[in-house]
Amino acid sequence: MANKELQVSRRGMEMHESPIRKLAPLAFAAEGRGVKIYRLNIGQPDLPSPQKALDALKLIDRKTLEYSPSQGYLSLRKTLTLYYERFGIKLDPDEIIITAGGSEALLFAFLSCLDPGDEIIVTEPVYANYMTFAKIAGAVVRTVPTKIEDGFCLPDVEKFEELISERTKAILICNPNNPTGYLYSAEEMIRIRDLVKKYKLYLFSDEVYREFVYTGSPYLSAMLLDGIEQNVVLIDSVSKRYSECGIRVGMLITRNAQLRKTVMKFCQARLSPPLLGQLVAEASIEGTEEYSREMYEEYIERRNCLIDGVNRIPGCYTPMPMGAFYTVAQLPVDDTEKFCAWCLNEFSWKDEKTPEGVTGETVMMAPAAGFYSTPGMGTNQVRLAYVLKKDDIRRALFILEKALEAYNARTKA
Amino acid sequence: MANKELQVSRRGMEMHESPIRKLAPLAFAAEGRGVKIYRLNIGQPDLPSPQKALDALKLIDRKTLEYSPSQGYLSLRKTLTLYYERFGIKLDPDEIIITAGGSEALLFAFLSCLDPGDEIIVTEPVYANYMTFAKIAGAVVRTVPTKIEDGFCLPDVEKFEELISERTKAILICNPNNPTGYLYSAEEMIRIRDLVKKYKLYLFSDEVYREFVYTGSPYLSAMLLDGIEQNVVLIDSVSKRYSECGIRVGMLITRNAQLRKTVMKFCQARLSPPLLGQLVAEASIEGTEEYSREMYEEYIERRNCLIDGVNRIPGCYTPMPMGAFYTVAQLPVDDTEKFCAWCLNEFSWKDEKTPEGVTGETVMMAPAAGFYSTPGMGTNQVRLAYVLKKDDIRRALFILEKALEAYNARTKA
Repeated sequence: MANKELQVSRRGMEMHESPIRKLAPLAFAAEGRGVKIYRLNIGQPDLPSPQKALDALKLIDRKTLEYSPSQGYLSLRKTLTLYYERFGIKLDPDEIIITAGGSEALLFAFLSCLDPGDEIIVTEPVYANYMTFAKIAGAVVRTVPTKIEDGFCLPDVEKFEELISERTKAILICNPNNPTGYLYSAEEMIRIRDLVKKYKLYLFSDEVYREFVYTGSPYLSAMLLDGIEQNVVLIDSVSKRYSECGIRVGMLITRNAQLRKTVMKFCQARLSPPLLGQLVAEASIEGTEEYSREMYEEYIERRNCLIDGVNRIPGCYTPMPMGAFYTVAQLPVDDTEKFCAWCLNEFSWKDEKTPEGVTGETVMMAPAAGFYSTPGMGTNQVRLAYVLKKDDIRRALFILEKALEAYNARTKA
Repeated sequence: MANKELQVSRRGMEMHESPIRKLAPLAFAAEGRGVKIYRLNIGQPDLPSPQKALDALKLIDRKTLEYSPSQGYLSLRKTLTLYYERFGIKLDPDEIIITAGGSEALLFAFLSCLDPGDEIIVTEPVYANYMTFAKIAGAVVRTVPTKIEDGFCLPDVEKFEELISERTKAILICNPNNPTGYLYSAEEMIRIRDLVKKYKLYLFSDEVYREFVYTGSPYLSAMLLDGIEQNVVLIDSVSKRYSECGIRVGMLITRNAQLRKTVMKFCQARLSPPLLGQLVAEASIEGTEEYSREMYEEYIERRNCLIDGVNRIPGCYTPMPMGAFYTVAQLPVDDTEKFCAWCLNEFSWKDEKTPEGVTGETVMMAPAAGFYSTPGMGTNQVRLAYVLKKDDIRRALFILEKALEAYNARTKA
């Protein structure tokens, strides 16, 4: 009784490679030809981490780099309670579980709440990696489309209710949103709360961009919604707010003790979150208000620079994002997957401003189809991240305009 | 159409808390009563990490603690190829994928090779966390028992063949073995190779204790077995060999390119392995031969101290482990789960050697039933880790002997 052939898992085969990843070898090849690439495609902030955190790294004086507790260091969890207090969220350190980035928090939340065949509802466009973690848990993601012409606001409650079945176990929101930059209003959060309560669902709330809210409008965390305290699972991470994506420190936070007990079983199996990252994260939280303010002001300017610039290019449109550091823009092309590949494969721009030593310049963007699960949606959209210096954003948009002109002239020819 | 109640996943509910974890609150309470605990229960080495690695930590001069590549830094992977060359294993850096500890390597190996319902065969006693990762993948673990009276050697091939069905996808070995310390002979490795080849299975080979082999006998890595190059997935980690359990740097290594491509999909979803840990790990590999030799000699002495000591206690027996830093010992009690709890809850020893400031001393051990999936097996066994200083091991064994006397006198009374 033998297997016929050695094969990878069906689960593995069915996972599609994201359109962003498919572009990576093209970018590598373009760089090989001496082309400078402006990367608007990924959310890797270029800003330095807080000096206080970098100093703390140099002061680590442990002799044995031993396992930390599976739940994460108590001192970090205590410091985090002070952080959340600034947003009006009162927590006990026990309610916080430290994970290897927001990614592990998502995975453990899904594994602990969902069984194979269970369904989660999200709006789309949606952060593509949610799909992978749902797939690992065997869960099915159902999507409610949001529209660029509505600024990607929350669809009517009826659109959610149409999808709710006996298998529906959770609603997942990302607020402020990756990829759209949308921020839910208090009124929208109440609508979500009512849905969650009525159907007894979990609410997974990914709030890693909490500090990137540019509108002055009040930000309402899911942790502050009355009446669904046991339902809410907060997904968080220090990655973006302190420019510390590499230290892999995230959090899963819930007031639901039974759920925490289940999550801890997974935490214990993987033994320990990263020790060094926790020490750096703890040093990042207090005494870095000045850092956060400067970062915030920088992102506001970058946002204005990007959004104004995109909307000035003929045929392009993007709504003004209220938070995070992304926007989804519509381009005057049929298929952004092809266009983004073409920008790397066939296009490069050169003029008197092109830096010396490169053969030309181009832009790298994330085709938005990868953020939709409904086929055909987002094919004329891209996600743009504003994690570059303003001068580079301006130059990137100038090159994008030239690329669009050349691309459309070519296809018309 | 609503869920009746908010519940955790069945998967989460079905995961049993390990007997080791159940003891943690008892240990906490004992310490609260002022009792000093000798921890023979966990594999957290007490030895310092290499000074060269600790120095490297202080020299990190990055300004942005950014994402590392999803596969891990190329420079670390190149350095690792030098490490493996010492063991005759020739690798290309592309064949190495860096993970958040050996734990993530195991999880991604299972997710990439196994679908729900697929089966893996392992010998028992077995490292309990394998079960959790298998559960996440939806895979079924079938176990072939090994026996303390045979020194936990590899059972006859027929015992494996009895379990092989159309759903069998893989054999998993841990070599040197946690929890038994057994090291497979070259002849046993050939038998495993033949099985894997005949039935076209994956061979997951967890070799994190590679450097802890005390017998002078040749150590044969699964990576060196002819004819199953595409089948082998090596699970590795720097945790134990450099006393760096907390940095969370492991590796998944395979010559199977299609499998690596699948594993990378999971790696990309979690974005990045820990940045800081990778920098420390890279500094640990070269120029630390002296460190490794000293560590090795220390563990040999600890092993001799523990094994001699256990076998001198009336009614106790453990075979001489050939590798790793664990042994499974049989105690003269019916139920080690009860006995281990009793040691923490009700027993403590005090004499003139008891350190000042504590109310008494006791031992913490891992009941071995948690390492077996066959009900009733291992109930009179414990796993002991020799990660304490020799004096502490001697004292712990003295106290264990006193505890056994008191426990058995009590039950006879």
